[in-house]
Amino acid sequence: MKKKISILGSTGSIGTQALDVISHYPDLYEVVGLSAGTNIELLAEQVRAFRPHKVSVADNISAERIRGLLPAGTQLYWGEEGLIEIAAGSNADFVITAIVGSQGLKPTLAAVDAGKTIGLANKETLVSGGHLVTSLAAKRGVSLIPIDSEHSALFQCMNGERREDVRAITLTASGGSFRDRSRAQLAGVTVDQALKHPNWSMGAKVTIDSATMANKGLEVMEARWLFNLPYDQIKVLIHPESIIHSLVEFNDYSVMAQLGNPDMRVPIQYALTYPERMPTPTEPLNLAEIGKLHFREMDFERFPCLRMAYESGIAGGTAPTVFNAANEIAVARFLKGEIAFLAIEDVIDAVLQQHEVAADPDLEQIDESDGWARLTAASLFK
Amino acid sequence: MKKKISILGSTGSIGTQALDVISHYPDLYEVVGLSAGTNIELLAEQVRAFRPHKVSVADNISAERIRGLLPAGTQLYWGEEGLIEIAAGSNADFVITAIVGSQGLKPTLAAVDAGKTIGLANKETLVSGGHLVTSLAAKRGVSLIPIDSEHSALFQCMNGERREDVRAITLTASGGSFRDRSRAQLAGVTVDQALKHPNWSMGAKVTIDSATMANKGLEVMEARWLFNLPYDQIKVLIHPESIIHSLVEFNDYSVMAQLGNPDMRVPIQYALTYPERMPTPTEPLNLAEIGKLHFREMDFERFPCLRMAYESGIAGGTAPTVFNAANEIAVARFLKGEIAFLAIEDVIDAVLQQHEVAADPDLEQIDESDGWARLTAASLFK
Repeated sequence: MKKKISILGSTGSIGTQALDVISHYPDLYEVVGLSAGTNIELLAEQVRAFRPHKVSVADNISAERIRGLLPAGTQLYWGEEGLIEIAAGSNADFVITAIVGSQGLKPTLAAVDAGKTIGLANKETLVSGGHLVTSLAAKRGVSLIPIDSEHSALFQCMNGERREDVRAITLTASGGSFRDRSRAQLAGVTVDQALKHPNWSMGAKVTIDSATMANKGLEVMEARWLFNLPYDQIKVLIHPESIIHSLVEFNDYSVMAQLGNPDMRVPIQYALTYPERMPTPTEPLNLAEIGKLHFREMDFERFPCLRMAYESGIAGGTAPTVFNAANEIAVARFLKGEIAFLAIEDVIDAVLQQHEVAADPDLEQIDESDGWARLTAASLFK
Repeated sequence: MKKKISILGSTGSIGTQALDVISHYPDLYEVVGLSAGTNIELLAEQVRAFRPHKVSVADNISAERIRGLLPAGTQLYWGEEGLIEIAAGSNADFVITAIVGSQGLKPTLAAVDAGKTIGLANKETLVSGGHLVTSLAAKRGVSLIPIDSEHSALFQCMNGERREDVRAITLTASGGSFRDRSRAQLAGVTVDQALKHPNWSMGAKVTIDSATMANKGLEVMEARWLFNLPYDQIKVLIHPESIIHSLVEFNDYSVMAQLGNPDMRVPIQYALTYPERMPTPTEPLNLAEIGKLHFREMDFERFPCLRMAYESGIAGGTAPTVFNAANEIAVARFLKGEIAFLAIEDVIDAVLQQHEVAADPDLEQIDESDGWARLTAASLFK
């Protein structure tokens, strides 16, 4: 029996690599649903190659544009309802949530509620709604398998171990495109400079988040829910080569690490094949050739976005949602040239300062805080 | 219920550290048998502290020396029969084979036959009798849990994984006390120089074996049996810091590693607590403080003992026994000042050249090859 897969965000970086992985094992996997935003040409191409029953796009305009390009019988949806249809309404066994941003939460909850195994690549799902998603997943007996390379590494390090034996987890951080610049050297950096990540080829939003370390902050919050650990047991270590993808320290001070060349197809495939492994098209790791691995302490002064992420995580409630929403808007404004690189952190800080945290928020409160944070972030430093 | 432990070789480096570990958990572990060689004072002290029912020493002279120092009711044995009594004749659940050299094989076989779980620290057991021990262990349903830091690391990396997903294993090697010397610079090195291991505090024999890389060769042969892998899937990588204790590459090219400060108490305790973990008295690993980890390709020209170990392993049968026995004698002769450091490899090479390999040897053939190799090794380069 083939495993039936739906992908939310199929035209993005993770989505296209997920389809690449699936294309290597046509006997094992079948794509039953794909959702994308407005990249109609690529989505149409993917639909022709993988023949999903259901397809969704951002809005009705995109829907009209793609309609004629779809094979007969393909069901077409759009908007938030479309996302939920792809996530929960199909006969998928496994839903890859590769969509970027806070729009991932609702369809993920719907997929969990429908009993689908989740291949989680959307950080914001757990950042904003970790308490809702993990409690629903526990109730439905649904597995959340991380796809992010760091969380996949942590997940692999915990294989066969008792969770109560975990003493701490350490997420490694390459340091992003500006890791060798001081704060003074960050004034006036351009969008093009910020988009040059040293190790990973990723989408623009994630690449900027990598340079500000907001990405690592979101990963820390995600890890808090995925592994049910308090923030003082979640550490970040700068490791420029991105070869050790993360580490778990156990209570005997033994440390397990997962290593590999930076290639997202490995954790994507692992999520699909878990608990088994299958050959991947990546290059084998050659440590002798690499020669040296470097590590240095995280600097929270240098990377205030990470500090604010920890603070938001510890504050809990709606604070992580506000951190994330403010960051999304700030990054979008930076990419449009509206604000400077260093103003990203100023925007987040100002929005967090103005926010009154509500504890244990439901979906509506999350939505409300998210909307408020976006409006506030959009209006600052004009 | 306390786990009942016997230790073969309790006064050696591994034995004393095992007792240190056990002393931290008096509610969990009970020592029921101890064997040592001729270090009567230390053994008597251990017996007073841990109160085993049964004790064994090297020979009847040592037995007479220790008799008066033992608490009333302690049963005293000596020689090979004594070792077998401690290994198999006690009510131990778990036998730590920390004895050095080829004398470890028979008592280990006896313990396996008696259904005891084995904490394996005696490399030569698997090197000489791997085919006998692993088939008997399979028949008796007995677990062989490695204590060596490298094999413990490999064992931990395979936790929760399917053995068929293992693509290769890599044992790390510090390079030993002479790792930064060329072969030319090895002529005329002294015993004192050879005994200075950069990372680990170990017995004299193991420290010399570490400098010649014969130790890594024995570990490679041990790994072949412990993990049932052909030699072309067993690799050695020079890693001077000894922080990554070994690595397993899976068929998706994901690599798992186990790391920690060099402290044998961690793998010793892990063998005892497996599949659980418990706090150890070691220092936590601080990668930021260490800063860099280095790796370089193994050089089989520089370390011919490792090359000969692979060749002996691949030849199989009695060849590994002969490699090991010739090495034991050569190292003993070097430590006595009889031969030069570089002559260790010459002795092994000459003995292997003269040996006619017998396939699938029984205990008697192993003994015979062992004895022949020792005599031959002792007679060379006089």
